[in-house]
Amino acid sequence: MVDTPHLDRVNEPADLKGLDIETLKAVADELRAETIDAVSVTGGHLGAGLGVVELTVALHHVFETPKDILIWDVGHQCYPHKILTGRRDRIRTLRQGGGLSGFTKRSESIYDPFGAAHASTSISAALGFAVARDLKGEDYKVVAVIGDGSMSAGMAYEAMNNAGDLKKNLVVILNDNDMSIAPPVGAMSHYFARQVSSKSYRDIRKLGKGVAKALGVEGAARRAEEYLRGMVTGGTLFEEMGFRYIGPVDGHDMNALVPVLRNVREADGPVLIHCVTQKGKGYAPAEAAADKYHGVSKFNVVTGEQAKAAKGAPSYTNVFAESLIREAERDESIVAITAAMPGGTGVDKFAARFPDRAFDVGIAEQHAVTFAAGLAAAGMKPFAAIYSTFLQRGYDQVVHDVAIQSLPVRFAIDRAGLVGADGQTHAGSFDVGYLGMLPGMVVMAASDEAELARMVKTATLIEDGPSAFRYPRGEGTGVEIPHDTEPLEIGKGRILREGSAVAILSLGGRLQESLKAADELAAYGLSATVADARFAKPLDEDLITRLVREHEVLITIEEGARGGFGAFVLHFLAETGQLDSGVKIRTMTLPDTFQDQDSPSKMYEAAGLNAKHIVAKVLETLGREEDAAKALA
Amino acid sequence: MVDTPHLDRVNEPADLKGLDIETLKAVADELRAETIDAVSVTGGHLGAGLGVVELTVALHHVFETPKDILIWDVGHQCYPHKILTGRRDRIRTLRQGGGLSGFTKRSESIYDPFGAAHASTSISAALGFAVARDLKGEDYKVVAVIGDGSMSAGMAYEAMNNAGDLKKNLVVILNDNDMSIAPPVGAMSHYFARQVSSKSYRDIRKLGKGVAKALGVEGAARRAEEYLRGMVTGGTLFEEMGFRYIGPVDGHDMNALVPVLRNVREADGPVLIHCVTQKGKGYAPAEAAADKYHGVSKFNVVTGEQAKAAKGAPSYTNVFAESLIREAERDESIVAITAAMPGGTGVDKFAARFPDRAFDVGIAEQHAVTFAAGLAAAGMKPFAAIYSTFLQRGYDQVVHDVAIQSLPVRFAIDRAGLVGADGQTHAGSFDVGYLGMLPGMVVMAASDEAELARMVKTATLIEDGPSAFRYPRGEGTGVEIPHDTEPLEIGKGRILREGSAVAILSLGGRLQESLKAADELAAYGLSATVADARFAKPLDEDLITRLVREHEVLITIEEGARGGFGAFVLHFLAETGQLDSGVKIRTMTLPDTFQDQDSPSKMYEAAGLNAKHIVAKVLETLGREEDAAKALA
Repeated sequence: MVDTPHLDRVNEPADLKGLDIETLKAVADELRAETIDAVSVTGGHLGAGLGVVELTVALHHVFETPKDILIWDVGHQCYPHKILTGRRDRIRTLRQGGGLSGFTKRSESIYDPFGAAHASTSISAALGFAVARDLKGEDYKVVAVIGDGSMSAGMAYEAMNNAGDLKKNLVVILNDNDMSIAPPVGAMSHYFARQVSSKSYRDIRKLGKGVAKALGVEGAARRAEEYLRGMVTGGTLFEEMGFRYIGPVDGHDMNALVPVLRNVREADGPVLIHCVTQKGKGYAPAEAAADKYHGVSKFNVVTGEQAKAAKGAPSYTNVFAESLIREAERDESIVAITAAMPGGTGVDKFAARFPDRAFDVGIAEQHAVTFAAGLAAAGMKPFAAIYSTFLQRGYDQVVHDVAIQSLPVRFAIDRAGLVGADGQTHAGSFDVGYLGMLPGMVVMAASDEAELARMVKTATLIEDGPSAFRYPRGEGTGVEIPHDTEPLEIGKGRILREGSAVAILSLGGRLQESLKAADELAAYGLSATVADARFAKPLDEDLITRLVREHEVLITIEEGARGGFGAFVLHFLAETGQLDSGVKIRTMTLPDTFQDQDSPSKMYEAAGLNAKHIVAKVLETLGREEDAAKALA
Repeated sequence: MVDTPHLDRVNEPADLKGLDIETLKAVADELRAETIDAVSVTGGHLGAGLGVVELTVALHHVFETPKDILIWDVGHQCYPHKILTGRRDRIRTLRQGGGLSGFTKRSESIYDPFGAAHASTSISAALGFAVARDLKGEDYKVVAVIGDGSMSAGMAYEAMNNAGDLKKNLVVILNDNDMSIAPPVGAMSHYFARQVSSKSYRDIRKLGKGVAKALGVEGAARRAEEYLRGMVTGGTLFEEMGFRYIGPVDGHDMNALVPVLRNVREADGPVLIHCVTQKGKGYAPAEAAADKYHGVSKFNVVTGEQAKAAKGAPSYTNVFAESLIREAERDESIVAITAAMPGGTGVDKFAARFPDRAFDVGIAEQHAVTFAAGLAAAGMKPFAAIYSTFLQRGYDQVVHDVAIQSLPVRFAIDRAGLVGADGQTHAGSFDVGYLGMLPGMVVMAASDEAELARMVKTATLIEDGPSAFRYPRGEGTGVEIPHDTEPLEIGKGRILREGSAVAILSLGGRLQESLKAADELAAYGLSATVADARFAKPLDEDLITRLVREHEVLITIEEGARGGFGAFVLHFLAETGQLDSGVKIRTMTLPDTFQDQDSPSKMYEAAGLNAKHIVAKVLETLGREEDAAKALA
């Protein structure tokens, strides 16, 4: 534990009110140390929080939270904010089951007026608060803090466009660390960089501290504001959109931050403060490799060494990347697209091998999908690698630009199902439903990493329309991946184990649990067939018919919400009259709730999708309630 | 019919190649007349096409379509393009069943390399083509034409950001008519307006023609380009994003357009041409009231008078608007949000009554949803009025910002189900599924306009989470709307007719057909119960259980895709063991295809969702195949 005498006196933001700049700096230093120590215990997002330590202190010093509304974009930089807003005692439970969320969350604190975890929502939400305030005749300030990466998303532009038009009092702080998760891409990042690298900004960094020191903070307020205004080196773009532009401001210099924030607190109309920060600031290992310290495992504070997971099976992400590289070596029309997630999707590995054939379009899922559609229309074989939850951002584009036009875009959907520490905002619960509804879409789900390799291969061969394959977060099951992968037959599942009484039809990653359930069912005298559906669309109708005919009970299981695979099976059985004579069918899906973060295994336990739940479901269905209770015990 | 000697010689764009400027002007004049005449017969989008007549001629004259790729954003301005690209003989079948689509469509012509109908997709698609071209070492040009309204969408910004970064040869033509469907909103529109109203642009309009005339067109090419470059009055924003900016150019002046396009055809890197046009140009009634002539009924060419539909029941859109106004008179926390569809959603009427409480955010559904979420978090009662198909644009925001946070945003979903002439891109097929999957969401569907009024009322009272109510395009059924509307009980349906053998459970607008089917079933000796589910979520479990217990057959029917209401009913029945003993249940949904445009009634006929289809489905289910065939005959 670090020694934090100043921070210890801050139980809530009001305790920052009377402090002078030097004391605020001391609080910030201790807050940084506390943040590093906490994350070394829990793992989580480190670099983003360290970059905004001074900004966090200055904001809570100048503004009157929670009356004033402070919205952090994405929310992964909010650990220092949580420490200052009454959650310090629980900060070492971050991202754990039952602990604090790794993001801002309305249900967690009145200091989180609007939660986040996906990027680029903060300005829209802030504008909602500002408009509501004025309609109700209330009097509070609204501040959104948004990173330069988030600013590349269309949604942020839409919000700026609307805010500049409505002219409400609203402060947007552009937290420019030249780094979203990976180094940023896109023309806008060059634009920001040009402003920051200009001579006048370099001057201000040198002079800023001196000026404030010379004048004393009170006197500095007005002068610093004039000074900063005179130093404007760019900002045309924001001014054209109706914002008053202030900056660039050194986001680690309390002498600059406090007077600037004091000034804008009283400003009229929309103001954008261009604040330059360094990701990982103040922690040498993180400063040196910002991308490696964006999200970390538990680590040793002194050395910066991160705990390594026990060497297990390769991750699905890696298997996807390697499979796609293998296919791309034989087929030069294959290209890969990521929306600001090169590492998370494995597209970084593809890019290392085929730099001209990999495209990181930034936090821009809408564009990513239609860009892929354009590539497909022009004869390429695009693989759009987007997490399940983020593909929601491009849903209309999947419908309108891909599916309606029957363009062969391949969607590689990582993080399907429950994802653990990132919690409810990152769960991939809905893709089977929202894609499976679309005419002409092929939807696959991988039950292990060898299956994933085959699905990559299969997708390369689907040329007459769109296809998607989903796979879980994390490690595979350890099966061998054949070097020469055979493609799958479209719409055909497979039977892994033949039984007689009960059939378990699994789509995706619950197959291992299904096999385990079959083992356990034997103890109850029940012989179980286990099948891997492979396809949510088109369904393997022959397989389903056979399972229904030959078994007393059919269980479907999937890592997705109601309205997905199980629903399609039920529709098919209803349509074909196979329900008419009585079928004991149960559909096991994710529960109809947004589940809080925990370890993935505990989340599946809570969801009721483990082997014992399958066993209990079968026994219940057969009227063996006592056995079912025993199975769950 | 108009006399069109020049146009008659243009069978394909290649026929425009050798023509001089004066002849191109003559072609354009005749193309305008032909467009007006055709739309007077078919109805459809008029103003947008008239605004780009000269641009269409100039583009096909300068570029080598279809080898060069020309992508029209939205595609509603493409009628002149269709006339020039081999579809003139069918132009009077526009938007009719079996006829030409009212939008660009890949399956219709090789001159439509990328179809559209939703806004703001063209730059993304064009960039896909440009990247594919370079990867394949091919040699063609890529042009996207996008309106100023479409440019306000975040997706266009994402695409510009990526295109400016990749530096591919790509031409974007900003077709600035200061008018999307309604007058444009947002800070960007002010930005465009400032450039156009600047003195230098006014000068160019005066001088442009003179310069070209004095120099002859060949000589004018180089000079005009230099001239235009010198005239740059703004464009900083686009230049900052990596585009070379040219303009503003008078989009009705062939003397300016042709040399500018010739120049950019040979340019390297991304180029943006800011082209100023007038919506409805050349047709006096349309020039005078551009919004009234955006989309028109059949009309008299001489007077401009549009055919009026026979006075029928009020439209659902009007009923929504009036109901919301009525509620808003009693509750000043009610606000309305539209994304560039004030007239289409009825928010214009609300805005007329409550100007401070209505917000048109532009073509920006992502922002619209999260802005509404912010308003809700700040204690307002926001109604986000967005068509079903366009809400797909804000899906992640519905999940992440609204549903996960349980914020009481009310979604008023117009154009649910099949929509007629706008065809497959505008059908509202998926909302029940994609919303019904979300935990905590209340999803209602109105079976008539009185029900819609009650659902508006009900939504005002749902304060603990999000709700949505969907309703069809077009006229209601003519029922009386009580002045003092009672709210619905959440999750409770209603029985309209009690029968004994067969139950029809309808969600939404198929209720009238269900009642008709019940009448017809009597002729087959079958007594039918008809129920209106009202809620797709939460389900009326008691009602469903009762219907299953007391009838031999249960039919669910909805105006939506598989994976929606019927699926939720099946999940419930499976979960509760009600399928175990045999239930003759059939789910009637939209077919698993994207249906081409036609009249709504013919589309429902093709979809198999009319009364006779219900009757046939019941008879089939009961094994009465011959009767079923008779019912369909």
